[in-house]
Amino acid sequence: MKIIRSLQALTTWRNRWQREGVTIGCVPTMGALHDGHRTLIRAARVQCDALVVSILVNPTQFGPTEDLAKYPRPIAKDRALCREEGVDVCFEPTATSMYPGGFQTVVSVPALARRWEGHVRPHHFAGVATVVTKLFSLIRPHRAWFGQKDFQQAALVQRLVKDLNLGVDIIVRTTVREADGLAMSSRNVYLSAEDRATATILYAGLQAGAAAIRQGTRDGKAIQERMTAVILSHPSASVDYLAVCDPVSLEPLVRVAGRIVLLGAIRLGRVRLIDNLIVQAR
Amino acid sequence: MKIIRSLQALTTWRNRWQREGVTIGCVPTMGALHDGHRTLIRAARVQCDALVVSILVNPTQFGPTEDLAKYPRPIAKDRALCREEGVDVCFEPTATSMYPGGFQTVVSVPALARRWEGHVRPHHFAGVATVVTKLFSLIRPHRAWFGQKDFQQAALVQRLVKDLNLGVDIIVRTTVREADGLAMSSRNVYLSAEDRATATILYAGLQAGAAAIRQGTRDGKAIQERMTAVILSHPSASVDYLAVCDPVSLEPLVRVAGRIVLLGAIRLGRVRLIDNLIVQAR
Repeated sequence: MKIIRSLQALTTWRNRWQREGVTIGCVPTMGALHDGHRTLIRAARVQCDALVVSILVNPTQFGPTEDLAKYPRPIAKDRALCREEGVDVCFEPTATSMYPGGFQTVVSVPALARRWEGHVRPHHFAGVATVVTKLFSLIRPHRAWFGQKDFQQAALVQRLVKDLNLGVDIIVRTTVREADGLAMSSRNVYLSAEDRATATILYAGLQAGAAAIRQGTRDGKAIQERMTAVILSHPSASVDYLAVCDPVSLEPLVRVAGRIVLLGAIRLGRVRLIDNLIVQAR
Repeated sequence: MKIIRSLQALTTWRNRWQREGVTIGCVPTMGALHDGHRTLIRAARVQCDALVVSILVNPTQFGPTEDLAKYPRPIAKDRALCREEGVDVCFEPTATSMYPGGFQTVVSVPALARRWEGHVRPHHFAGVATVVTKLFSLIRPHRAWFGQKDFQQAALVQRLVKDLNLGVDIIVRTTVREADGLAMSSRNVYLSAEDRATATILYAGLQAGAAAIRQGTRDGKAIQERMTAVILSHPSASVDYLAVCDPVSLEPLVRVAGRIVLLGAIRLGRVRLIDNLIVQAR
């Protein structure tokens, strides 16, 4: 496995493979790789010829009061995982090479960035859209894999790729969960033992929403209230949002029909957890 | 010469040539091609293997009260010029295929878009940055040519390409002028005979600024006043802006040193004219 840090070296690598006509795949990450990432990388490995995993804790998607400085960076462990999974290139650009002095361009996907995570984290998705555009320009992958756990991010990247004609096939893979149902996340390490035990209520709340739909509830507000009741039954949890949405526009639905997504974000102490569930109303 | 209207067909064309390892060149235009465009196309023709001229009157860079509807669209004449100059592909995407329903992504280069043209035309440069990103994603040129006449646009595209790692070499060619000095522009056709005669004062004003610098004036404000006096000596002209700027940041200069750019925009009746001059202060 090649470890590439320089943007120029990555471009040279890409140009060589591009001329060979091979399929380039890409899994963009912020490192701190867990089994969710491993699943993405395995799926990618068998669906492309040359596979790049990018690792960058992207500063522009963090707010000023967020966890940029303390975000986990276990680079040796991350490289070992990539090596085990047969990754061709671990692309590790520095923040300074990605955002040199004078940098000012912003890519935004305004309607999809407005609600939910975007409401709580105002500049987050412009940071995501900009870095994804840059990574795709550098790597020029044919396909890229994203986890369903960050549902709004995946929806936004799909829109972005279409709108800017980036020519990347975006594949979204189902969320990988711990045995008790908690969605895997690099931020789960921040949870205290007690909060870790409580953390399962987010998935439980979403499942309660899905169960209500299966039992025939079609009223968006009723489903939202059902999910909220599950979360608030635990005194240490607070709700950032719980919503019943259209899976493409992410606009909240008054009435459920067809394929929908349940989106949730809660807080346990200082830790924010997000999760989602796709439900097909029959 | 191939005329390509569909985005998919353009991508197929590009993929084929890309695999051959040839150099792809691109001259993005809004059509209504004049000798300024011809000069760009000729320069491009000898510096790339496969040359695409794109023709799109891009709606997103026009303001609501601007001349989108009446902008000249002499497509047969434009194609003939491209054919004469040995262009390989005339890429004529429709506005609808570029901006289908649901389109929402915006690329912006905020600091460079704030002043001068951006001040008078608030959404213009976001429209330019977005369409250029899209065209470069579709065509994936190695090099692209822009005219110096739209100096702020060229500066912004250079910044954009660097910031988003688009990997396109941007070449800016000197403004082509009519015999009397008026910068060639597709919008010159809007000028009445009388205003056409007066229109030379913009270039004359810029030249007066350059002369002042050559004669030793270093004070930005004094140079600006010199240029303004020339324009306002003609009663039918009004000044939008006349400025002495850094040629990269486009910020106005209090004191002139080294390479600078004189930027100007005036109005004659309902027609706006822009022009600029690069000056090396010794």
